[in-house]
Amino acid sequence: MKAAILAIGTELLIGQTIDTNSAWIGEQVTSLGVTITQSLAIPDDKPVMIQAIKRLTRDVQYLFVTGGLGPTRDDITKDALAETLGVEMRYDQATYDRIVTYFTRRGLALSHLHKEQCYFPIGTQLLENTMGTAPGMLMKYNDCSIISMPGVPYEMKEIMSRHVLPLLRADQRSITYSQRTIHTAGIAESSVADRIADTLTILPPSLEIAYLPTLGTVKVRVSNRGPQSEAIVEDAVSRLTDQLQPYVYGYDGLQIQEAVQRLMIESNLTLSTAESCTGGYISHLITSTPGSSAYYQGSIIAYSNRLKESLLKVNAKTIQDHGAVSEQVVKEMVKGCIEALGTDIAIAASGIAGPTGGTEAKPVGTVYLCIGNKERQIVRKFGLNKNRIINIRYSSRAALIMLRKFLLDQ
Amino acid sequence: MKAAILAIGTELLIGQTIDTNSAWIGEQVTSLGVTITQSLAIPDDKPVMIQAIKRLTRDVQYLFVTGGLGPTRDDITKDALAETLGVEMRYDQATYDRIVTYFTRRGLALSHLHKEQCYFPIGTQLLENTMGTAPGMLMKYNDCSIISMPGVPYEMKEIMSRHVLPLLRADQRSITYSQRTIHTAGIAESSVADRIADTLTILPPSLEIAYLPTLGTVKVRVSNRGPQSEAIVEDAVSRLTDQLQPYVYGYDGLQIQEAVQRLMIESNLTLSTAESCTGGYISHLITSTPGSSAYYQGSIIAYSNRLKESLLKVNAKTIQDHGAVSEQVVKEMVKGCIEALGTDIAIAASGIAGPTGGTEAKPVGTVYLCIGNKERQIVRKFGLNKNRIINIRYSSRAALIMLRKFLLDQ
Repeated sequence: MKAAILAIGTELLIGQTIDTNSAWIGEQVTSLGVTITQSLAIPDDKPVMIQAIKRLTRDVQYLFVTGGLGPTRDDITKDALAETLGVEMRYDQATYDRIVTYFTRRGLALSHLHKEQCYFPIGTQLLENTMGTAPGMLMKYNDCSIISMPGVPYEMKEIMSRHVLPLLRADQRSITYSQRTIHTAGIAESSVADRIADTLTILPPSLEIAYLPTLGTVKVRVSNRGPQSEAIVEDAVSRLTDQLQPYVYGYDGLQIQEAVQRLMIESNLTLSTAESCTGGYISHLITSTPGSSAYYQGSIIAYSNRLKESLLKVNAKTIQDHGAVSEQVVKEMVKGCIEALGTDIAIAASGIAGPTGGTEAKPVGTVYLCIGNKERQIVRKFGLNKNRIINIRYSSRAALIMLRKFLLDQ
Repeated sequence: MKAAILAIGTELLIGQTIDTNSAWIGEQVTSLGVTITQSLAIPDDKPVMIQAIKRLTRDVQYLFVTGGLGPTRDDITKDALAETLGVEMRYDQATYDRIVTYFTRRGLALSHLHKEQCYFPIGTQLLENTMGTAPGMLMKYNDCSIISMPGVPYEMKEIMSRHVLPLLRADQRSITYSQRTIHTAGIAESSVADRIADTLTILPPSLEIAYLPTLGTVKVRVSNRGPQSEAIVEDAVSRLTDQLQPYVYGYDGLQIQEAVQRLMIESNLTLSTAESCTGGYISHLITSTPGSSAYYQGSIIAYSNRLKESLLKVNAKTIQDHGAVSEQVVKEMVKGCIEALGTDIAIAASGIAGPTGGTEAKPVGTVYLCIGNKERQIVRKFGLNKNRIINIRYSSRAALIMLRKFLLDQ
């Protein structure tokens, strides 16, 4: 079963908005055995939309359309769909009543523009949107089902989850597909490929392998389409994992913070963080996982040296002798953090995130990370690049990868 | 001047990777007056690639291709390009020498796979990549210039910035285009549209307006193509701003944290944060802006109630009487934070981020935010939804929007 994605909105093409919707839709429908053949983004331009809808619907059973359903004058997806299908619009009173309720509850003023949102191409099935004003729409065009949804990500996800994914699950045309992802950390993409090269030659040719390197981790996607997909993929994952140890930290949607959470809770230990250059991002990664409060107590973000001394009890002389970005300071930060927050383990980060602030001895991108308990601390120095956001993200993930290693080595 | 974007990689279609490259390229080239007509993502499939390259190059002067240049066997963009152009591959010794240096410096093992990375379609101009192993490529196909780059975002950006954008700037075919964005906070999309409706009727018909709502803010993009674009856009922005006050907090690429940073530095005040449910994300937003250390001192993330008491001096009885998620507690957090970190102003956040942990009186999504100095505190209560990440991001941005208001009201 094949599908295509059409994302509508000039903001996507001029780079004002990053299209996260298409990836999410792709992930959801792929797991149901649907193949996305292409994903296209186009501007708010009616003739272009009509042409794209006609072309994309030609070879697929489903077309997912996002965007252009809002109340303002750049929202013209419904017009384009009606024109493609050659139908008129009809007014839907139930939608208007729902919008009135939605606005009243939030204490917002209703605009006359919302009347416009209640017209739909005739023959359209409406898919209720409980998170916003514009409902989704389902319509047939030749042999393809078109599903049109708002571009606001959480509204789209709500409509997909409640209405569209159940529909796909019930569609008997889907074929067997299976997919798993092996997550590795601390090894380069080329070395991953080298390590598994021999194993790949003895696995079925229908098996597909892809490598996805990002911020110090490499994901290996293993997939298969056709009979016995699940067994083929399971067997491959188990063989490849053997070749990739000890770098494998988990599988599938798992993130490094979830792998760490599992280990921390199993070992019944508590954690705190002392952050400088990462500015709260390590703490954010940890607390983005539900249930993190079971082991994570909190953080002291000591952005200034003054606070490193007063809150984390880093010795003023240590900062003077070695600089705030040094092995000695991150070690003292770990000890001070354990003391102040009363946890078993602490993570400390100090570095020069950039883009300025570097010296010859410590250029921008120099980051020290320390993980430890009262008895044992491990320190690593990183030489990253000049991009502030990448440095913050890379070193925050690196801290969690180090913490995992620290826990396994206990 | 027109261009199209082609993003290659099965990971984009199955949702394993969000395509941020296309948005970045779109933003950069739009600002140079180039119109992106479409942005297409396709799988690692050679026939599909060849067909896409042929179709996309038909109506544009530039095609930007990302992805598929790595050392592993799913990286086949170069083959597809050579086949489309009908040329053979040639080996480039200089590239190999560069890869050897790159690996040696990082202490990584060189793989035989990197030899493969040194073959390029004949007639290709190589664009040096200082951030990774695969250089970019520039080639002519009919009347279109194809630029192929690695999919790793910082490698692509480096090649674009150093080689491609200068090329576009020098291209005399570009026409006048101007664009600005007005950022508003605290007002709904439909109300923004209502407020400016009358003004729009008296502005030139060539002017384009788009509305981009996200997490409590609405951006209004104002653009014009054709003669005198800059003057037309400047005039429109000034008129629209008048209609949208006091909700406008800035223009163009500005983020709320940058608007806040400007105000804080102007007023010569220092800031700290006391975070619970936001788990460091407020601090991350603040410190993601270079120069934030000029006013931001740090944070206490008191994820546990114990730390709210020990580090932020929140009264145990206040928590007992009103709960940790309450107006009283966030007020005490602000005061305790100012005390502990010695700043002029503090932000405090406490809430139930979800997806579980709610009660009937305080459902998931209940968040209290407080901004204040020693004398004056303002508190707001939010009823958000059940999505943990969205709740964290929404309330963190809301805190900065509140801080801006607090500073303006001083």
